[in-house]
Amino acid sequence: MNSQMNNPIKLLRFTFDKEMQSVDRLLNKYMTSVSTPIISELSNHLFNAGGKRVRPLLTIASAKLCDYSGDSHIKLAAAIEFIHSATLLHDDVVDESEKRRGKPTANFLWNNQSSVLVGDYLFSKSFQLMVEAESLDVLSILADASATISEGEILQLSAVKNLNTSEEVYYKIIEGKTAALFEAAAMVGAIISKVEPDFVKALKNYGRYLGLCFQLTDDLLDYVGDEKSLGKKIGDDFREGKLTLPLIKAIEKSTLKEKKFFKNAIKRNSTCDESLEEALFIMEKYGTLDFTRKKAIDFSKKASDSLTVFSDSNLKTTLKSLTCYIVSRIN
Amino acid sequence: MNSQMNNPIKLLRFTFDKEMQSVDRLLNKYMTSVSTPIISELSNHLFNAGGKRVRPLLTIASAKLCDYSGDSHIKLAAAIEFIHSATLLHDDVVDESEKRRGKPTANFLWNNQSSVLVGDYLFSKSFQLMVEAESLDVLSILADASATISEGEILQLSAVKNLNTSEEVYYKIIEGKTAALFEAAAMVGAIISKVEPDFVKALKNYGRYLGLCFQLTDDLLDYVGDEKSLGKKIGDDFREGKLTLPLIKAIEKSTLKEKKFFKNAIKRNSTCDESLEEALFIMEKYGTLDFTRKKAIDFSKKASDSLTVFSDSNLKTTLKSLTCYIVSRIN
Repeated sequence: MNSQMNNPIKLLRFTFDKEMQSVDRLLNKYMTSVSTPIISELSNHLFNAGGKRVRPLLTIASAKLCDYSGDSHIKLAAAIEFIHSATLLHDDVVDESEKRRGKPTANFLWNNQSSVLVGDYLFSKSFQLMVEAESLDVLSILADASATISEGEILQLSAVKNLNTSEEVYYKIIEGKTAALFEAAAMVGAIISKVEPDFVKALKNYGRYLGLCFQLTDDLLDYVGDEKSLGKKIGDDFREGKLTLPLIKAIEKSTLKEKKFFKNAIKRNSTCDESLEEALFIMEKYGTLDFTRKKAIDFSKKASDSLTVFSDSNLKTTLKSLTCYIVSRIN
Repeated sequence: MNSQMNNPIKLLRFTFDKEMQSVDRLLNKYMTSVSTPIISELSNHLFNAGGKRVRPLLTIASAKLCDYSGDSHIKLAAAIEFIHSATLLHDDVVDESEKRRGKPTANFLWNNQSSVLVGDYLFSKSFQLMVEAESLDVLSILADASATISEGEILQLSAVKNLNTSEEVYYKIIEGKTAALFEAAAMVGAIISKVEPDFVKALKNYGRYLGLCFQLTDDLLDYVGDEKSLGKKIGDDFREGKLTLPLIKAIEKSTLKEKKFFKNAIKRNSTCDESLEEALFIMEKYGTLDFTRKKAIDFSKKASDSLTVFSDSNLKTTLKSLTCYIVSRIN
């Protein structure tokens, strides 16, 4: 129990163990197809790959913070995990990834075709689950979130190897690929609880800032993380020509000679270990790793401050500590 | 006007020109993304590739047959065209197709990644449009249809080159990949009109049988069609190892020697023109092309008979003649 107390995600999982078991049962039920066993095989591989279920936990916790007493939060938590899973499957196809969290991806074990179609299936099932919650407001939020996610992913794809990618475009990408679903996950918990707009807005902001802080931390760790705990090599974003904040700011501040180095390394795919070292050296020189760290911590604080409208409770404390926990890996 | 009278699809487009223009405007509005122009570029390519918009026409016509007077039918028709477009984009990635209706596919002109993500985007937009129609019943029907479509596509993928594919599995595949959306398209027109269950059921059956007849005709034409009007070579399904009804029935009736030929041709990819000729010879021998033709005509009749509950009108006559028109290419 003590180690769980120090990790707010584990504490939330412990607190909402019964609810999360119901979510898992729903996920299993909805991904089982008798005629096409590959759906559950592939989905099971994905669900057992060590995801922390942060998004469905957010929905459950938000609903509980608003004193919700029905069972729609279970359905919506499962729907949100399905949307997330569908985007993971499609992402790995788009990125041609062979590993996720240190384990082989579905597209590597099966093939791209199956990952595309099973992703579509999971997205459809998430849609069925949302309809079961019988709230047009919730459906509208999740439809908008889905569109924002796709838009972010497409923008990210267009920005690959584009050295002119701006900080503004970067934020648009991470608002889409990460913050939109965190925001929706937290917000729908409030919506189904029928609380006043102030509380809905508070949880919407909490989710959004948490998502931004989560993604900035992830992008920073790609340069400064510990390979063992990351389960992958550092510098993957650099090698794939994915421009994240530390790199975007470094290119912005670079001398002509440094810009030429980046152009050469990224456009011509010569992103060897020496290039990565050189890139890290330039980022350190201009303090862009620190700049990114500070932005992540800013968002973490904003997420925490969003919860001010709620009266104090253990759950509120845990949700506030979650914002610190996320940046603790880089702080 | 006279040539339009002989073609029920053109007649429906003529009759509902105003509505279809509104549908097109909605499609354009929802596929425009300022930050990511590739979305509208790729979608426009797809929408201008010569599709007949049969599914959205079905929704408009069904609503009109039920005397509907609101504007949800426009939104739902656009939503259904988006679902269809999303599946086309993903299908072409899964099948590695370079051409559709004689024109280069989006995945060929852009890349698989863009087709996967823009497909996801269009699916999300269809979901937004459905929510705007503000009917949980409609949302439920379309969520179920989407899941059935994905399931059909996955089943089809698993059945590729599987010589044991049964007639039962074939019907499950085409129920998914084609009939489910035809059925939903016709049914939602009735649902929003709030007509009695008998009329909903009639249009549901009409759509389903029309979809089945449409797919059987398509699968037969792949063997017996005219290459010029098809816009592609005949025998593509055979070459790709896609088992459709004429082939499934032929394999079922084959002698051991013929079975060995099919196994050799399909499993080992030796599907040259001589193999196709031999396959056609065996299909003719066992009458499986005729068997498929009869099944298509049966479904066409069932579709037509489904409309009996509606009182006579020009629109009913056109919808009945549409069922004959679809099979006229093989009859």
